[in-house]
Amino acid sequence: MNQQAHGGNLAWAAALAGCSPSAILDFSASISPLGPPSSVISAIVSQFDNLRNYPDPNYSELRLALSHFHQLPVEWILPGNGSAELLTLVGRDLSALAATVLLTPAFGDYYRTLAAYNATVLEFPLDLTTGERRQEEGADSVIRGEIKTVTDQPFPLLHFPIPEGCGLLLNNPHNPTGKLFVRDSLVPLLERFAVVVVDEAFMDFLPPEQEQSLLGLVQEYANLVILRSLTKFYSLPGLRLGYAIAHPDRLSRWQSWRDPWPVNNLAAAAAIAAIQDQDFQAQTWQWLPTARNHLFHGLAGISGLQPQPSAANFFLVESQHPTSDLQQKLLQQHQILIRDCLSFKELGDRFFRVAVRSQSDNQRLITALKAVLSA
Amino acid sequence: MNQQAHGGNLAWAAALAGCSPSAILDFSASISPLGPPSSVISAIVSQFDNLRNYPDPNYSELRLALSHFHQLPVEWILPGNGSAELLTLVGRDLSALAATVLLTPAFGDYYRTLAAYNATVLEFPLDLTTGERRQEEGADSVIRGEIKTVTDQPFPLLHFPIPEGCGLLLNNPHNPTGKLFVRDSLVPLLERFAVVVVDEAFMDFLPPEQEQSLLGLVQEYANLVILRSLTKFYSLPGLRLGYAIAHPDRLSRWQSWRDPWPVNNLAAAAAIAAIQDQDFQAQTWQWLPTARNHLFHGLAGISGLQPQPSAANFFLVESQHPTSDLQQKLLQQHQILIRDCLSFKELGDRFFRVAVRSQSDNQRLITALKAVLSA
Repeated sequence: MNQQAHGGNLAWAAALAGCSPSAILDFSASISPLGPPSSVISAIVSQFDNLRNYPDPNYSELRLALSHFHQLPVEWILPGNGSAELLTLVGRDLSALAATVLLTPAFGDYYRTLAAYNATVLEFPLDLTTGERRQEEGADSVIRGEIKTVTDQPFPLLHFPIPEGCGLLLNNPHNPTGKLFVRDSLVPLLERFAVVVVDEAFMDFLPPEQEQSLLGLVQEYANLVILRSLTKFYSLPGLRLGYAIAHPDRLSRWQSWRDPWPVNNLAAAAAIAAIQDQDFQAQTWQWLPTARNHLFHGLAGISGLQPQPSAANFFLVESQHPTSDLQQKLLQQHQILIRDCLSFKELGDRFFRVAVRSQSDNQRLITALKAVLSA
Repeated sequence: MNQQAHGGNLAWAAALAGCSPSAILDFSASISPLGPPSSVISAIVSQFDNLRNYPDPNYSELRLALSHFHQLPVEWILPGNGSAELLTLVGRDLSALAATVLLTPAFGDYYRTLAAYNATVLEFPLDLTTGERRQEEGADSVIRGEIKTVTDQPFPLLHFPIPEGCGLLLNNPHNPTGKLFVRDSLVPLLERFAVVVVDEAFMDFLPPEQEQSLLGLVQEYANLVILRSLTKFYSLPGLRLGYAIAHPDRLSRWQSWRDPWPVNNLAAAAAIAAIQDQDFQAQTWQWLPTARNHLFHGLAGISGLQPQPSAANFFLVESQHPTSDLQQKLLQQHQILIRDCLSFKELGDRFFRVAVRSQSDNQRLITALKAVLSA
């Protein structure tokens, strides 16, 4: 078993920690600690009688709810069995192009989907200097009263010569660095690339007045595809639910490439409940800045650790101590799981990633890291 | 909206009938009336706490349970988001061959998946003479004490010259005719076709001593693929759960073509509960023969209707009265929905399909058909 695969790592971790998987304090998956919302559980239960029926292949109710949520016509919205399923359709689309550009380190599933359709990949490295250094160099922020994380300098790719007819696949905020690209820095890319796919799986962690989504541009650019996920914000990775927003012609083509009922009735109802749960959303936006700030300063205060400022619900942390050793000791001595970055070839054993959890969990991590690193 | 798409037709029918979708007596979807089993609902509820976690990408528990159920090694089993998702992978596999043979009339989703990968389709028509006539011609049966439905004559395709390097995609029992091909009649096809995909979505309706599955041959033939579904037998079309059984190399290739978590945690747990629910299975095997027999004779006793003998939980019925008119009158006058066969180009307006339901529901259908046809 690959210890890094989501969903496979808890069993591996529990074996190493000598405890049950549920006893592991999991900082490795970037999932909100607040969910799933009770409204979602109720919606699932309400569908038990509907298991006897096939899903509506048009997903009319779900698409209408998403249409209201984003103020976009229903034809521009395609639900999927997790955004990972939609990423597979993205891969087939991008494979028709000369090449696809990834900003590295890049989410491993991007390589998977591009390989599945034999697409050519061009890698462009992101600047991995840590936040403090970047701030000294003048990066600014649109997030008021918070750690500066936003890049409104010219987008890194604009410095490079890009071959004609290429695609671009990036996430915003970026995983695993937590960088947020401001909307205006991405717009020129829409003129430069044949297809631009922006995976906004973590964008909903930014409150409305701070988000930098390209959703508002999708009707202007037929070459723009946006992927959204309910996995992280609503703590539902076990349910599989995401959606794509793009030109109706593209979505029709994708629909012809897959089966008619990719989202089950439980997940479809759960999604409607989730996006309509404004209390849960407000609660998340209230929790995250404070908890993230506390965790950042806690990590930054530990000698040998350098967290990158993040606009999302996780931190990429540079470590002078080999991460694999740190990960093992945290498991064995504290039953805490962090995400090593060995699967990102640019990061290797010098980095790890941790999710932001509750204040008390975050404090437990900080205390454990201090204990392990000073031992 | 296409009125024929599963999941889309109940809303269309309810509008025509002037009632709510739940008030429709639905004979159009070939789903068991007995489920979902309560064991499945309990299993789903037990997973609510596990929604916070990604599915195990290896689906180890589910595959182990299926391995015990079918007495096959786990490496030969791949769960999917409904067998429709696996059918998409089948389509990609088959598109690499010279052509793929379908027995017509064929399930519409077969055309969909083959078109999605630009596969070439060769159509071979099945004999659509009705059961009584076929019996006169000498077809025999392995189903003791029941309507004769089994073709153990040489498989129809063996009469035709098949080009080299072709694939074959068929269902057994066959949908929409309900024909069951005996195991021995299919074995020669494994030597003749480069890939043979047998969709056994309805095979579990046959009790163990009567089933004609090719599961027992899968380890002998690397070119054999079997698709199974939990949708029909356990009344779970809204949950999406199926699995493929084939050579591990083929399944690994398929896995690389799709996302890592196609089955959500609720469906994975539901599947384990379903296949282990021997009481529910026994109950189904007890219900079906009697209910089917009663419905067959009821239909056959109506002037102008000729049901085909069926090994599955549905009947294809030839009608002297145009089916579209019949369908409309049944809806408007009796709130009963039958499946017209307009989407099967070989069948058109002369055939309809009905599921076997409870004795009282079946009687309601028979009474309504008599009333409509004698009006």
